[in-house]
Amino acid sequence: MDVRSVGEDGWIRRIRERFAKSPARLGIGDDAAVVDIPAGSSVVACSDLVVENTHFLRNLHPPDSVGYKAVAVNVSDVGAMAGVPLYFMISMSAPPDLDWSWVEGFYNGVEVACSKFGVALIGGDTSSSDRIFVDVSMIGHAPGGRVVCRSGARPGEGIYLTGTLGGSSLGLELLQQGESLDHPAVHRHLYPEPRHRVGRALIAKATAMIDISDGLSTDLGHLVEESTVSARIFRNMLPVFNGATDRQVLHGGEEYELLFTGMSLPASMDGIPVTRIGEIFAAAGAPQVVLVDRTSESVLTPSGWQHFER
Amino acid sequence: MDVRSVGEDGWIRRIRERFAKSPARLGIGDDAAVVDIPAGSSVVACSDLVVENTHFLRNLHPPDSVGYKAVAVNVSDVGAMAGVPLYFMISMSAPPDLDWSWVEGFYNGVEVACSKFGVALIGGDTSSSDRIFVDVSMIGHAPGGRVVCRSGARPGEGIYLTGTLGGSSLGLELLQQGESLDHPAVHRHLYPEPRHRVGRALIAKATAMIDISDGLSTDLGHLVEESTVSARIFRNMLPVFNGATDRQVLHGGEEYELLFTGMSLPASMDGIPVTRIGEIFAAAGAPQVVLVDRTSESVLTPSGWQHFER
Repeated sequence: MDVRSVGEDGWIRRIRERFAKSPARLGIGDDAAVVDIPAGSSVVACSDLVVENTHFLRNLHPPDSVGYKAVAVNVSDVGAMAGVPLYFMISMSAPPDLDWSWVEGFYNGVEVACSKFGVALIGGDTSSSDRIFVDVSMIGHAPGGRVVCRSGARPGEGIYLTGTLGGSSLGLELLQQGESLDHPAVHRHLYPEPRHRVGRALIAKATAMIDISDGLSTDLGHLVEESTVSARIFRNMLPVFNGATDRQVLHGGEEYELLFTGMSLPASMDGIPVTRIGEIFAAAGAPQVVLVDRTSESVLTPSGWQHFER
Repeated sequence: MDVRSVGEDGWIRRIRERFAKSPARLGIGDDAAVVDIPAGSSVVACSDLVVENTHFLRNLHPPDSVGYKAVAVNVSDVGAMAGVPLYFMISMSAPPDLDWSWVEGFYNGVEVACSKFGVALIGGDTSSSDRIFVDVSMIGHAPGGRVVCRSGARPGEGIYLTGTLGGSSLGLELLQQGESLDHPAVHRHLYPEPRHRVGRALIAKATAMIDISDGLSTDLGHLVEESTVSARIFRNMLPVFNGATDRQVLHGGEEYELLFTGMSLPASMDGIPVTRIGEIFAAAGAPQVVLVDRTSESVLTPSGWQHFER
């Protein structure tokens, strides 16, 4: 059975039945969804694309991983603002000859993400196309409108990181070499753990925050640029995923760890290790990231994921 | 200059500069946007895909029409709930060799839609792909959480429609035949007018509402199904766009007129003609739409736009 034989109405009906239990005032099935956020809160909104052959390969990535990850990366984005994720929509375009089991598998992963992160699917759109294209848009809330932006880092503050780095790109490499889905690095690549609860707990503690989606060098680059400061990080302080290379640690994307700044933060939060990896200093010229490796210093050029370059 | 040479960071920087004036608490440029909706309101949320070769052809549709329409169709969806559109995100995937002028043209149309509908761009995502994919997700509000759903139609109520039908599909046909962009039907196809202000004004008057995006037969079919009623419409009461065929009037999509039910509604709202085209009656078996043409009656089968069928 392929997508064509299920049809657009059939597709929507099946999702609607599957995700019928929802805290939304009005969920899937009308022109728009209607939801409430707690009184006194602002709406936190983001969206993330998942495109076949750019973000995943159909013959390499299990469909439930694609569905899980599409939701998880948005949970991570809301968490990186210290917001609380609540609701999401999925717009999905697929080839008419795509086997329906792929779509079912995709929604299996979405369902896992829903129960794991306490979020609910409330709508979206479907269309036909040559390749699978997914856009998840998420709505969360921020009590009192307070969030942690990328722009708040100040000289003298420490730079902190949850978890470890390099695991996701190592996992992708191993997956391409035929490694089992159970391998810890492969599992990390396929089912990343967003740190939204840590992000939320950092609301009054972190001065700036971003999640590592494009790689440490690129995302710390964004943070220093938005804050108009520079950063110094220490190679020997970086928490390394077992087996990851230097390049994977410094530039590997899709980690979904939180990178944040502040004064004397705890060594673990919500059961997740937190490591101080460097410090913020005043930018003399353009904001930059300096990597200290033993006794030598070098400027770390953003070399993480950039679309359109390949 | 193509998309590759502008790059992802360059793309985001340009949009951010262009859409910097925003009523959002925090707009483009962080992990997520932060916006406020009026106290006591619910959030109304929807999303709509615009896919190259499915929704538009790059050699036929001007890029500003694609951008304008991507926003307008979401404004229409929020309006069809009697909600007020406020903010939106654009996730867009494009081939690296796409000329940057296409993207600029696209955002020209987005900018027109922003000022015309009083909505603001607050974020999104970009990626590379073989074809152009656009997903716009919109956030609006509904004071007191009150909306008009598809499910509220009751026997004895009239069926009403704003504007005329058939113009958009006639316009597409003429466009394919090389007709000028100024032709009224072509213009209607390229730059549809969402009726969100009428929709909003119908909050206490309409019992059920939907916008005509997939064609009268399909969308009235959705309304009767959700309301568990049947509908009778009169062929000679249907307001026809000048020159449109029977098929275009009954099944043509992308009209973005509002179809709604209620008792004795005015003949014009917000300067837009409102026509009573039929009536709701109790469904004996499965809900259906009956078309009365002079003295003969026939069941109108939904034959509007369905993805995956072609």
